[in-house]
Amino acid sequence: MPMAKQRLVTLLTDFGTRDPYVAAMKGVILSACPHAQVVDISHDIPPQDVLAAAVVLAQATRYFPPDTLHVVVVDPSVGTNRRILAGRFGGQVFLFPDNGVITFVAESTPAEALVSVSNTTYLPPRPPSMTFHGRDIFAPVAGHILNGVPLSRLGPQPQKYELLDIPAPAERQGGLVGEVIYVDRFGNMVSNVSDEALGRWCKDPAAVRVVCAGRNVGPLQGTYAFAGVGEPLALFNSMGLLEVAVNRGRACDVLRAGVGCEVRLLQV
Amino acid sequence: MPMAKQRLVTLLTDFGTRDPYVAAMKGVILSACPHAQVVDISHDIPPQDVLAAAVVLAQATRYFPPDTLHVVVVDPSVGTNRRILAGRFGGQVFLFPDNGVITFVAESTPAEALVSVSNTTYLPPRPPSMTFHGRDIFAPVAGHILNGVPLSRLGPQPQKYELLDIPAPAERQGGLVGEVIYVDRFGNMVSNVSDEALGRWCKDPAAVRVVCAGRNVGPLQGTYAFAGVGEPLALFNSMGLLEVAVNRGRACDVLRAGVGCEVRLLQV
Amino acid sequence: MPMAKQRLVTLLTDFGTRDPYVAAMKGVILSACPHAQVVDISHDIPPQDVLAAAVVLAQATRYFPPDTLHVVVVDPSVGTNRRILAGRFGGQVFLFPDNGVITFVAESTPAEALVSVSNTTYLPPRPPSMTFHGRDIFAPVAGHILNGVPLSRLGPQPQKYELLDIPAPAERQGGLVGEVIYVDRFGNMVSNVSDEALGRWCKDPAAVRVVCAGRNVGPLQGTYAFAGVGEPLALFNSMGLLEVAVNRGRACDVLRAGVGCEVRLLQV
Repeated sequence: MPMAKQRLVTLLTDFGTRDPYVAAMKGVILSACPHAQVVDISHDIPPQDVLAAAVVLAQATRYFPPDTLHVVVVDPSVGTNRRILAGRFGGQVFLFPDNGVITFVAESTPAEALVSVSNTTYLPPRPPSMTFHGRDIFAPVAGHILNGVPLSRLGPQPQKYELLDIPAPAERQGGLVGEVIYVDRFGNMVSNVSDEALGRWCKDPAAVRVVCAGRNVGPLQGTYAFAGVGEPLALFNSMGLLEVAVNRGRACDVLRAGVGCEVRLLQV
Repeated sequence: MPMAKQRLVTLLTDFGTRDPYVAAMKGVILSACPHAQVVDISHDIPPQDVLAAAVVLAQATRYFPPDTLHVVVVDPSVGTNRRILAGRFGGQVFLFPDNGVITFVAESTPAEALVSVSNTTYLPPRPPSMTFHGRDIFAPVAGHILNGVPLSRLGPQPQKYELLDIPAPAERQGGLVGEVIYVDRFGNMVSNVSDEALGRWCKDPAAVRVVCAGRNVGPLQGTYAFAGVGEPLALFNSMGLLEVAVNRGRACDVLRAGVGCEVRLLQV
Repeated sequence: MPMAKQRLVTLLTDFGTRDPYVAAMKGVILSACPHAQVVDISHDIPPQDVLAAAVVLAQATRYFPPDTLHVVVVDPSVGTNRRILAGRFGGQVFLFPDNGVITFVAESTPAEALVSVSNTTYLPPRPPSMTFHGRDIFAPVAGHILNGVPLSRLGPQPQKYELLDIPAPAERQGGLVGEVIYVDRFGNMVSNVSDEALGRWCKDPAAVRVVCAGRNVGPLQGTYAFAGVGEPLALFNSMGLLEVAVNRGRACDVLRAGVGCEVRLLQV
């Protein structure tokens, strides 16, 4: 039933849930497409934190059905001339500002289609607000996509698009070095070192030790409970990424570290 | 398809999302009307803040489809003899406590119908809790409305209803003076000065300067990025209201001001 | 229409709403059952607070339609050998970790069916993550239940299951003594003393006085407004439980008390 699937739409914003902004977007989408089913990814992305949004987007959307439409409005440059892109990645559709928020989605699955949304047929007739493109551009365009307008009608293919400048994990001085790209609500520090990257670098995970923020956090564990309460540990988490955590505690507080902090894997 | 539209219902409360209160309301509504589609406007209105709820209600609901039912439970006087009203404004239906929360909706679109909910046929048979009318009165009545009971059956038209006492912006000493009525999660201070009020008062917006909390925040800007980082600015926001903001900062903290603070427009 | 009802599924977790975890679960459920209607009970349970989750679960779910599926992932022992249970209580279906979170549901309505989820036919083929069973076990199993797999196919009946060790309210030294089991977002302190327990102990509620945290909080009131602003009071709340509150204030702060604090009813 492709019609039914096509009507699933998710929202990822930094608008919070206190103000009328998210609901206004939902109202516009449901006015355009009354049978849309709107699912919240998150509205609690730290304001204007494109990197956090990029991580959440990639980790949440991969579990959704084919043809789901994902709308992202974490958009510090709203009101400037940054473009709005619509693309198909891994059988799902993404509508997002061209600021790198698509980085980790695009890394794991190449674009099957990508357009710069510019066809005035599908844009609001009167000048939208300069501060709330979520309601005035993203939501109406989402309505058109949900109603079956093909991406190719929305605008031309862009020559390039923005990606975040996160260096891939690399070997340095005998260690595999990555960095923290996300801190979750539990204070867990998630790095960009994937289990595939580990596998390429080292054939014996049991011999690996992890150093983060100048502290030896020990070998790779299977789950949080394998460390003492309050003690840091490292594991490959449910995203398949190396995470530094503290059993029943907040790693970012215990290690006084956060996004950008180096994570180093050593073989012993 | 009016049936499908009729089944869209939104909730606006100050219950937060941690406790069982919102879910209990949804359970009651979905038990009465299994095909209802429940959309959250917000549950993070500051407790008992009727003014904040009034702003959010007006700004969010205007974007919903005709016949949407909006249920508001920001109700500091729960358990007293305050009335519960149901009304039709602008083609949408509102169920709300008679405490002024409808003020800005009613201001922008007159009531097409208004009743005081009192017909015991549609009220719970046993005495409801005195503390949770959201679950025990609002939700069952919402179920009746979703199932097609006309408003006129719910009770008589009230002779009057409550409106918040917010003075309209007015000219004083050569300036147009309004006040802050809402502070959003970004710390932006939203006033009650609409772009229409500006247009009536002044034909040259480029000559306007804005003073807020004793500070000159300059001319009207188009978007946040037109001020330096950390600097305050004034703009007409996506609600069509004058807003005092700080580029990449929190205006309410920078200006040490909040709801009720005077906002003054001067012509230079 | 049992099919339509069967597709209503709720989620109760301590994942928060900032991270991708809740959305990943929704994606898995909607991939398995595209017509599921997912309703959030709460994702703001304090991390790993099984008691709070148990209270919220019982208080929210009782208002949902028959056959609703309730999925609980407040699961401090994820990754250990704790069991996952699926049961039918009061005509509704619950999928939950065997850690006592079902306590108050089971107290008010006996299990009509209960199984330990272990049939590998309905479990993920590859080893799931050790840290995110919500996405890798609970959500796929929920999909099977929504698609009509009977509970009896999921595994055998367990010989016993975990219940929280909360002593029932009891008479001591002439008073009825219970304890605070939940503090809500308003700071209201909810005890385990039900109105039925009161009725069994005392025939004259008007003669009851309540002592909490060493402070006489007076007779039983009907609603919050019956105490002075900032003053504590006791009432039977919308859950049918004795609650110590402060009119327009936070009881837990005013009384410097919380979960586990004794609540004593005396007859005067």
